[in-house]
Amino acid sequence: MKSCQNWEGNGNGRAGAFVVVGIDPGSIATGYGSIRRTNAGIECLGFGCIRPSQQSPFTARLEEIYDRLVEVIDTFRPDRVAVETIFHSRSARAALIMGHVRGVVLLAAAKAGVQVFEYTPLEVKLSVVGSGAASKKQVQFMIQRILSPSGRLSSDASDALAIALCHINKTARGSYELLKR
Amino acid sequence: MKSCQNWEGNGNGRAGAFVVVGIDPGSIATGYGSIRRTNAGIECLGFGCIRPSQQSPFTARLEEIYDRLVEVIDTFRPDRVAVETIFHSRSARAALIMGHVRGVVLLAAAKAGVQVFEYTPLEVKLSVVGSGAASKKQVQFMIQRILSPSGRLSSDASDALAIALCHINKTARGSYELLKR
Repeated sequence: MKSCQNWEGNGNGRAGAFVVVGIDPGSIATGYGSIRRTNAGIECLGFGCIRPSQQSPFTARLEEIYDRLVEVIDTFRPDRVAVETIFHSRSARAALIMGHVRGVVLLAAAKAGVQVFEYTPLEVKLSVVGSGAASKKQVQFMIQRILSPSGRLSSDASDALAIALCHINKTARGSYELLKR
Repeated sequence: MKSCQNWEGNGNGRAGAFVVVGIDPGSIATGYGSIRRTNAGIECLGFGCIRPSQQSPFTARLEEIYDRLVEVIDTFRPDRVAVETIFHSRSARAALIMGHVRGVVLLAAAKAGVQVFEYTPLEVKLSVVGSGAASKKQVQFMIQRILSPSGRLSSDASDALAIALCHINKTARGSYELLKR
């Protein structure tokens, strides 16, 4: 898990202080990123990516993703978890595989008693970049600019932080404008 | 969980003795059924159906399915778990939801260290009824005839027992003919 430098925004305190872990589920790579929101602004607590060995059976990969997410939740002790929702998929087969991963992601949150929020990729891009057509690189650029993460930020971890940030923006009116600066 | 009467087949012992739990995953109803295979034949150990409240959030329903399956595995202590695979779905959305449930099913098996086997609906129907076009009622009829379950057998539990039976048939050559009597 990598840490981020503090980022001092001017949060308006309307939503109170909380920690959110964003998760971008995938069978090859599941990104995660944690952000604390306080009245003083937002702070990236850490991020990372779970990449189970593709040689392992699918069941073992699901178990690894679950176990690692249990650790992530135990480390950051979030008040909320934010996960990307998909409504459209290139195929039913791809949706089925994605569903398996999302199943263990939601279970890890449920077992920790943490409420789960879901956002579409469109909502995340609109919230973080200001355009629903934003590329992964544009999302990554904005996340780097806003959160100044130390160390290499993979696109999966960047997407996860974007989901967490989307949740913060949705719950705290005013922060959207703040992020566009 | 309901029990079944013993059914004395003339197993050929080639596959050895084992217990298999068949699982038919679904977000509304997840059926399960356990069969023991010995050299003396096959015996239904029990069956049931997990129906989480549809008023509960999806995350809580997934947790209930997982927790109940952990109990089922703890009760029957299977050597193997057999689950239905889907390759085709009426929509990506339906496949995604099914995937969530299968994810927690596979995790419950992985956490118990039990190997998972997967069969398509076609394989299950062919194995139990002898026709890939068999209806749910036909599957239920054959399961009732072969395993003589005591108590009402729901179609979900029947499908789960059919998946378990399919696994037994696939692993023990000769038992397929046996079941057609």
